[in-house]
Amino acid sequence: MKQYNFNAGPSILPAEVIRKTAEAVLDFEGHGLSVLEISHRAKYFQPVMDEAEQLMKELLGVPEGYRVLFLGGGASLQFCMVPYNLMEKKSAYLNTGVWAKKALKEAKGFGEAVEVATSADANYTFIPTDYEVPQDADYFHITTNNTIYGTELSDAKLADIYKKKGNVTLVADMSSDILSRPVDVSQYGIIYGGAQKNLAPAGVAFVIVREDILGKVSRHIPTMLDYRTHIEGGSMFNTPPVLPVYTAMLTLRWLKEFGGVAAIEKRNIEKAGLLYNCIDHSRLFVGTAREEDRSRMNVCFVLKPEYQELQDDFFKFASERGMVGIKGHRSVGGFRASIYNAMDVEGVKALVDCIHDYEKKI
Amino acid sequence: MKQYNFNAGPSILPAEVIRKTAEAVLDFEGHGLSVLEISHRAKYFQPVMDEAEQLMKELLGVPEGYRVLFLGGGASLQFCMVPYNLMEKKSAYLNTGVWAKKALKEAKGFGEAVEVATSADANYTFIPTDYEVPQDADYFHITTNNTIYGTELSDAKLADIYKKKGNVTLVADMSSDILSRPVDVSQYGIIYGGAQKNLAPAGVAFVIVREDILGKVSRHIPTMLDYRTHIEGGSMFNTPPVLPVYTAMLTLRWLKEFGGVAAIEKRNIEKAGLLYNCIDHSRLFVGTAREEDRSRMNVCFVLKPEYQELQDDFFKFASERGMVGIKGHRSVGGFRASIYNAMDVEGVKALVDCIHDYEKKI
Repeated sequence: MKQYNFNAGPSILPAEVIRKTAEAVLDFEGHGLSVLEISHRAKYFQPVMDEAEQLMKELLGVPEGYRVLFLGGGASLQFCMVPYNLMEKKSAYLNTGVWAKKALKEAKGFGEAVEVATSADANYTFIPTDYEVPQDADYFHITTNNTIYGTELSDAKLADIYKKKGNVTLVADMSSDILSRPVDVSQYGIIYGGAQKNLAPAGVAFVIVREDILGKVSRHIPTMLDYRTHIEGGSMFNTPPVLPVYTAMLTLRWLKEFGGVAAIEKRNIEKAGLLYNCIDHSRLFVGTAREEDRSRMNVCFVLKPEYQELQDDFFKFASERGMVGIKGHRSVGGFRASIYNAMDVEGVKALVDCIHDYEKKI
Repeated sequence: MKQYNFNAGPSILPAEVIRKTAEAVLDFEGHGLSVLEISHRAKYFQPVMDEAEQLMKELLGVPEGYRVLFLGGGASLQFCMVPYNLMEKKSAYLNTGVWAKKALKEAKGFGEAVEVATSADANYTFIPTDYEVPQDADYFHITTNNTIYGTELSDAKLADIYKKKGNVTLVADMSSDILSRPVDVSQYGIIYGGAQKNLAPAGVAFVIVREDILGKVSRHIPTMLDYRTHIEGGSMFNTPPVLPVYTAMLTLRWLKEFGGVAAIEKRNIEKAGLLYNCIDHSRLFVGTAREEDRSRMNVCFVLKPEYQELQDDFFKFASERGMVGIKGHRSVGGFRASIYNAMDVEGVKALVDCIHDYEKKI
């Protein structure tokens, strides 16, 4: 039976990227060795790192003065690397979910970290707008998509943040919506994220960093936590996660062939529209996120109060139709369908059909 | 033509491990999804992490009170994690190579880090023994195998260190000889390393840590750099490098089937014996490491002074016979054959034959 992968991350990758990665595990580009056992210093790996960096720049329109890095350790390590590198005394955070909160917690280890606003009391179902960014903060940190709660900073809210930030450096965790829509990189000091949603298998994080914001804090920075180390080393100061970087390059090639970020955004809008429309017209289900803050990547929905007892039954029904990874995060409950770049319209339609068929059955 | 992979790392993995990893990239254990896109929270990944941890414990005879972790970020991140977690004021390092020196450098960011001895003046060709371990140090750090220079702490020198350390916690970077020979884990507070030599593809580090040495420093430790975070999270506090961990598990299964660490040590002794014997009787080549400190994992050799001009010629000759990755590190020059666990006797014999044939030709 065909499986539809709605995992929140690690998550679906394009079928062609998976096939090419499997080929490279057996024989890396005809060199007779596996991608698992090639030296990162071999002359044939440098082009992989270079191309991955170049395609990130090209697809996201990264301006001059920025560097793209691929690092181990995941986005969680970035939570402390950001304050390590940027925070002299004070930082500001918009707390829109558990991951944003974790990022904020790390900053508190380095000085005064201000939570400018939060929707925690409403279980993070919306993105707050009623706040100001303290102009003496060393940076202002946002999380553009909140995987667990299915909320996302819309283009309008981002535009508002670009105004609100004033002269403060903007830092964004874009783990779960990078490359899903165009982004004005020039507004940011740092954009980072785990790559295991729209880019690669687990084991690599991406960092887009404006070079001129670095080197301004007075603290000692351990070598591996200093972005300058990795800029200087071209993401190869130490052994990089070779296979995840290779797969990232393949995904970026796939996205370029697809037509780039604007083209994939169009499809993402279509996909999210199909699924939210289905839920909004559902007799059984209801969405959890405030409409204007709905994520195009993670669609969260629950059974209406009067149908709560169907929870396990629908999960079983959907699983039997090949729907994988649709259980909601325990802090929201219900269901979550993650429909990242690699999920096609047909996959979303299969889930919509599954919901419709279940409604007919009940 | 068959290729013989003598890369220093990332390096050769057992053929069967590579084949099974490729299968899992296409279909993870019959679940219909790629190992690249499965959730680390899925019920079928937890057994992978558990088995990898269990096999490390079993194969290395890890005693009670220790935990095995698989983390992102590489051994280089451990260089700062060790002092972060263990160093209150003072630490001691045996400097036996560039990597040991890098580890020492990181510790200097946290307080007084003493270099007890070094062979830097002799380009790290031997392991010093004439030193004492300061008994007020929070830990004493060694590097058991020095990949670049082809030196290794012999069992005799390790026994001497176990005496010398007194009551000081012993910490070892075993990146390039872990699982190549039995080790008395009970002598160590922490054993760590990058997994990309004897264990896995690049992208994961292993840490074996005695729990009771943690939580004794007064400094704030960022969450991701605190070993206790990863102990509590069972190496899944954040998304682990799924594929590298899976491949590590396969390699550990392979090693167990091979007969375990004692059996592989026997083969490693045979392999190293074959190659060193060839070099010691060579008309053209000479080994660079002091005999008693020779590594069984990395065999470094150079052309004798009178044959220096043959450098490129031999490299070309060997490459044409399928020898991959035998160029020595730039700081030693000449040649280096890394003969990790996965390299079989036939591969070493092929290199020996290659050297013999070249000598006949010259």
